[in-house]
Amino acid sequence: MDAKLIVDEVRLTPILISDPPLLNTQGVHQPFTPRLVVEVITRGGVSGLGETYGDGVYLGLARPLAGALPGRMVTDVNGLFALAAETAGAPRQDADAGVDASGLRGVRTADKLRLSVVSAFETACLDALGKTLGLPVHALLGGKVRDEVEYSAYLFHKWAGTDDWGAALDPAGVVAQARRFDREYGFRSFKLKGGVFEPEREIAAIRALAEAFPGRPLRLDPNGAWSVETSLAVARELKDVLEYLEDPASGTAAMAEIAARTDVPLATNMCVTTFEEIPRAFAENAVRIVLCDHHYWGGLHRTRELAALCRTFGVGLSMHSNTHLGISLAAMTQVAATLPGLHHACDTHYPWQTEDVVTTRPVFRAGRLAVSDAPGLGVDLDREALAVLHRRWLEDDGTYRDRDDAAAMRAVDPGWTPSRW
Amino acid sequence: MDAKLIVDEVRLTPILISDPPLLNTQGVHQPFTPRLVVEVITRGGVSGLGETYGDGVYLGLARPLAGALPGRMVTDVNGLFALAAETAGAPRQDADAGVDASGLRGVRTADKLRLSVVSAFETACLDALGKTLGLPVHALLGGKVRDEVEYSAYLFHKWAGTDDWGAALDPAGVVAQARRFDREYGFRSFKLKGGVFEPEREIAAIRALAEAFPGRPLRLDPNGAWSVETSLAVARELKDVLEYLEDPASGTAAMAEIAARTDVPLATNMCVTTFEEIPRAFAENAVRIVLCDHHYWGGLHRTRELAALCRTFGVGLSMHSNTHLGISLAAMTQVAATLPGLHHACDTHYPWQTEDVVTTRPVFRAGRLAVSDAPGLGVDLDREALAVLHRRWLEDDGTYRDRDDAAAMRAVDPGWTPSRW
Ligand SMILES: [Mg+2]
Ligand SMILES: [Mg+2]
Repeated sequence: MDAKLIVDEVRLTPILISDPPLLNTQGVHQPFTPRLVVEVITRGGVSGLGETYGDGVYLGLARPLAGALPGRMVTDVNGLFALAAETAGAPRQDADAGVDASGLRGVRTADKLRLSVVSAFETACLDALGKTLGLPVHALLGGKVRDEVEYSAYLFHKWAGTDDWGAALDPAGVVAQARRFDREYGFRSFKLKGGVFEPEREIAAIRALAEAFPGRPLRLDPNGAWSVETSLAVARELKDVLEYLEDPASGTAAMAEIAARTDVPLATNMCVTTFEEIPRAFAENAVRIVLCDHHYWGGLHRTRELAALCRTFGVGLSMHSNTHLGISLAAMTQVAATLPGLHHACDTHYPWQTEDVVTTRPVFRAGRLAVSDAPGLGVDLDREALAVLHRRWLEDDGTYRDRDDAAAMRAVDPGWTPSRW
Repeated sequence: MDAKLIVDEVRLTPILISDPPLLNTQGVHQPFTPRLVVEVITRGGVSGLGETYGDGVYLGLARPLAGALPGRMVTDVNGLFALAAETAGAPRQDADAGVDASGLRGVRTADKLRLSVVSAFETACLDALGKTLGLPVHALLGGKVRDEVEYSAYLFHKWAGTDDWGAALDPAGVVAQARRFDREYGFRSFKLKGGVFEPEREIAAIRALAEAFPGRPLRLDPNGAWSVETSLAVARELKDVLEYLEDPASGTAAMAEIAARTDVPLATNMCVTTFEEIPRAFAENAVRIVLCDHHYWGGLHRTRELAALCRTFGVGLSMHSNTHLGISLAAMTQVAATLPGLHHACDTHYPWQTEDVVTTRPVFRAGRLAVSDAPGLGVDLDREALAVLHRRWLEDDGTYRDRDDAAAMRAVDPGWTPSRW
């Protein structure tokens, strides 16, 4: 095979990006969130881009993997999983068990951390391959089946911050936020991050959205903060307006019990976050929609496999999002373009991010992004912007290098603990 | 994207290839079997190869699809499914319901026929893409995870024919056949096609193999010819020597009942032949091993998706084979090379085929084929050989253009009907 496809160098650049004070059940987004930019540079001089979580634990796994990559082909993405396991030492399943406060995506395990790291390397390899061959990443995944990917507005209760969105702490504030998303981005679907206030207040916010935007798809996601009974009560209150209820309660057993007792579809990015969790969740009919995320499912190929699993079992598919930049948005859009049966608009935090490392910000039209046919992911690195954000990471005293929404909340309210209803 | 990747022309060449008188529960292989060779030629002048079933019903679906392909990109393989459905007219699920005598692969539906046709077009597109880019097909599927693929000897009860294998109608004949496979190909695993004689005789053949080749993986496949009780009796007799029992009885319900009552693993290429059949079969634990076949699962990408499904549910994977030539063998080897967790040697009829349309016959060493790193599938078309086999098809009076093992048997024994035990 062509020597110009051999990996020559891998560059890892941890950065801190500014993030508004968005509220969730685990606390509040820090002013700065760590991300990791992965560049895979080939002997042909082509640089491929990937992006993932940037906390120390991810960096710790990314460094040995980066060291092992030179000399391998960028085509060899199936082999990244074994390589990552090898360079990480013996697999330590559940070694870091505990709720992942930064990810709000279920229990954190060594396996999941590793997959999140692999995803950035896989994306970077595919980007480099596509750029070398003159093919978009979607063509490397069998080709797009749509020309645009629809995204959803991601509404948050939030404090006023240095951003220009202002506070949103009641239904009127949420509706105002939604109006701006509607105006500036054209999103048709609205998702509200819940689990922040008592359920009545969040029900009222969804009701207000339903009145302001009649017939538009609405979603509420309390990240598992509710009991089964509370979840059922919310489902009863909102059953006429919800597209789906996302992770109302924690764990497959609770989700299955809720699902059995309501017609409101349940979605998840918490109880189905790995292939291992699928058989039980599907057998118990715990969810009707899985929110895939190429970061933690292990990349774009794995996302396509997850989509095939969902299709086979008649489970719907949409896309989860955590704070991310334009590299990941491009990756999400490229893989989403190849998935048949993507019947729900994908989530994205992207509009909340004012800083980026790509040279051109993608533009949403009618809530959609056009699928790029440019080589690779179709984005270019803004090295100056990257350097600025990396400098912020270098100069950070450790306060923000690991995302901790609870700590950020306690910095303001020392006695704060997560509420459960 | 590059204009040289646009499909310029598609050539369909139906052929008849000679086949030995191999016995199975549906009858006997005809002296000649129809196959279809698909060539996808790009504007860049590159020709990609695919191969599938060649019966009239497949040809009838392949022709309109071939007509619709020019002008599309060879990268656009995900789009082939919608295109095939469209060119075939409205989907006629179950329109052709009935046992597929030629395929011995469960109930035949319009959907399945179409997928078998798509598979050849997908393979041809990937071959053309790989040849254009200088990349092997495995690299287009994320890269190989092994350098060799292991195959199994495929033993048949057979009549003496024009081939040089002679008859094999009793345990001694089966062992003699196995010895030749062992000597000439080095296969470690042996599969016997059963359902031909009364179970006692086939049990004796497996016993004889176990004695001749102690410790070697052995499989028996009566293509669903046995009742649940007979299947359990055979399983009891052979439980110490069988790697797995393949489709002892017909249908998921029967397979599940057998599986519940024996420790012998059950494999299938009959009750799980489409994604639609998976949920029930997996929920009922009907099978421990699925034998994938890129022809009828719809191509190489779909095969990888099936593998992901099996992995997720802890179901083993191996590969089914029907009479095929070197194009399909190359495709099987390329995709098998990319599948993690392929723990059983793949089936192949290939050694029974003395005619081929590729210029160089692949060589098995220790039962394995090296995974080619040459561009595309790594095989070239022997146009002279293709022309000879096509001429045979043209000159055929209709006797062999559709494979019908039962008719071939009745030509010898007019009163023959399939036996069930
Ligand atoms: Mg969520
Ligand atoms: Mg079989």
